[in-house]
Amino acid sequence: MHTTYVIFNGALIPEKEAQLATNDLAIVRGYGIFDYFKTVNGVTVFLEDNLDRFYRSAELMDLPVRYSRDELTNFIAVLMQANNILESGIKILLTGGYSSDGYSIAEPNLIISQHAITRNINQEQQGIRLLPFDYHRPFSQVKSIDYVMGIQALKVAKSQGADDVIYIQNELISECPRANFFLISPEGKLLTAGDDVLQGITRKKIIDLAREIIEVEVRDISIVDLQCAQEAFISSTTKNITPVTTVLGHRDFEPGPGPITKHLQKLLERLVYQL
Amino acid sequence: MHTTYVIFNGALIPEKEAQLATNDLAIVRGYGIFDYFKTVNGVTVFLEDNLDRFYRSAELMDLPVRYSRDELTNFIAVLMQANNILESGIKILLTGGYSSDGYSIAEPNLIISQHAITRNINQEQQGIRLLPFDYHRPFSQVKSIDYVMGIQALKVAKSQGADDVIYIQNELISECPRANFFLISPEGKLLTAGDDVLQGITRKKIIDLAREIIEVEVRDISIVDLQCAQEAFISSTTKNITPVTTVLGHRDFEPGPGPITKHLQKLLERLVYQL
Repeated sequence: MHTTYVIFNGALIPEKEAQLATNDLAIVRGYGIFDYFKTVNGVTVFLEDNLDRFYRSAELMDLPVRYSRDELTNFIAVLMQANNILESGIKILLTGGYSSDGYSIAEPNLIISQHAITRNINQEQQGIRLLPFDYHRPFSQVKSIDYVMGIQALKVAKSQGADDVIYIQNELISECPRANFFLISPEGKLLTAGDDVLQGITRKKIIDLAREIIEVEVRDISIVDLQCAQEAFISSTTKNITPVTTVLGHRDFEPGPGPITKHLQKLLERLVYQL
Repeated sequence: MHTTYVIFNGALIPEKEAQLATNDLAIVRGYGIFDYFKTVNGVTVFLEDNLDRFYRSAELMDLPVRYSRDELTNFIAVLMQANNILESGIKILLTGGYSSDGYSIAEPNLIISQHAITRNINQEQQGIRLLPFDYHRPFSQVKSIDYVMGIQALKVAKSQGADDVIYIQNELISECPRANFFLISPEGKLLTAGDDVLQGITRKKIIDLAREIIEVEVRDISIVDLQCAQEAFISSTTKNITPVTTVLGHRDFEPGPGPITKHLQKLLERLVYQL
């Protein structure tokens, strides 16, 4: 079988040899950050935006990054050459490091890994069902490894026939555990939550694309906005733009992408996949 | 130098050889649980209570434990014999396992480790200062590895001259990131928060001890309770009963342990240290 490689603290090594000692702060305290982007036909997609966000997450969580942007870029190029996976997701993970007292941040460990991904076109065409879930992610601007709530919530969603949850607290809709959330208002505006959610790179690109064709409002999104909306969708690196057909207990939409969602899907597809 | 051993998935191995592959769900999603108890003069303290809680945490987080209670007890005995550390803390850590999709729970990895600890008698006599912090721990009954908020909050506490934070949300006082919180009411009752906090083993022992000498109320604790209280203290496996001298912005207490706190300290010391 083909060997998959990772970059482990600057060195290219086989993935199965990449291991962390069990006192790393990620393991003992769930403390670490990551970033994630994809490659399409062997080319990185939006890498510069992801590196911006990676350094920002690290700074907000007080994790020192001992590699420059050029070094990270070079590591990624070396990794892609070694693995030779054309359609892939690449994760840059930075842990809290080997903590002497089991609580204080130490010298972080950096692991860059790459795996093949396939696009779920079926889901992008048919859409997904979301279950409302009472939660708001702390440190929402940070892409932290803390997904305890997301993993537990997914179990609840599946048990109720939904594909995932949407976090709603105090009548405000923020985001999905691994995706941003958008609405098309009755007037045909694009609505999405502002500062207090993950600053998704796909989200940012969608906002830029949408501004060319419709009005965009980046602001608090309420249950009332949802109930009045014409269309809804989520976005992420792997899901691109995926329509939301139902928010359980609140709103059913027409099956598949609405007209504006479909238009935005085409624009994003052209940008990401050069189609 | 003396080699320290750990139990890694049932095998006794040197700690420096205990490593996890970087796709463990603890590392990629901060998903895992643990439990922690101490040994005094080479004897485990409240081990049965800790094993109860360990299995309960695992169940609440859907982590299967493939070892029986007798097997865990035996691992701990083997570890203690190998390490021969009389005064120690022993941690039983159960991770989310090597997840194939980076999100689903897999076969957990179990690591039992032991390290020397020394009692901080100075702090138990002098007390600590706490900074109020607006937060309530989700999955509060689970001893999960998720301490992102605690680590970030400690930084804020230190910057304001406090030793740690106390979580207060909607006027209700729950717990410290790594300790339970208690008050002595104006009438001399012991007050501590109920179900929605970590079910600390030291907390449980204190409640039992206190019931022999004073009235105990396990219920929601408010800011008003704090402002009226005569004494305050925190408890944990390592901190035993440590007085709180100040909750910044809310209440200053007399320096050192108040009379009831001191009485409880003596009772707990007799139970734990046989003094």
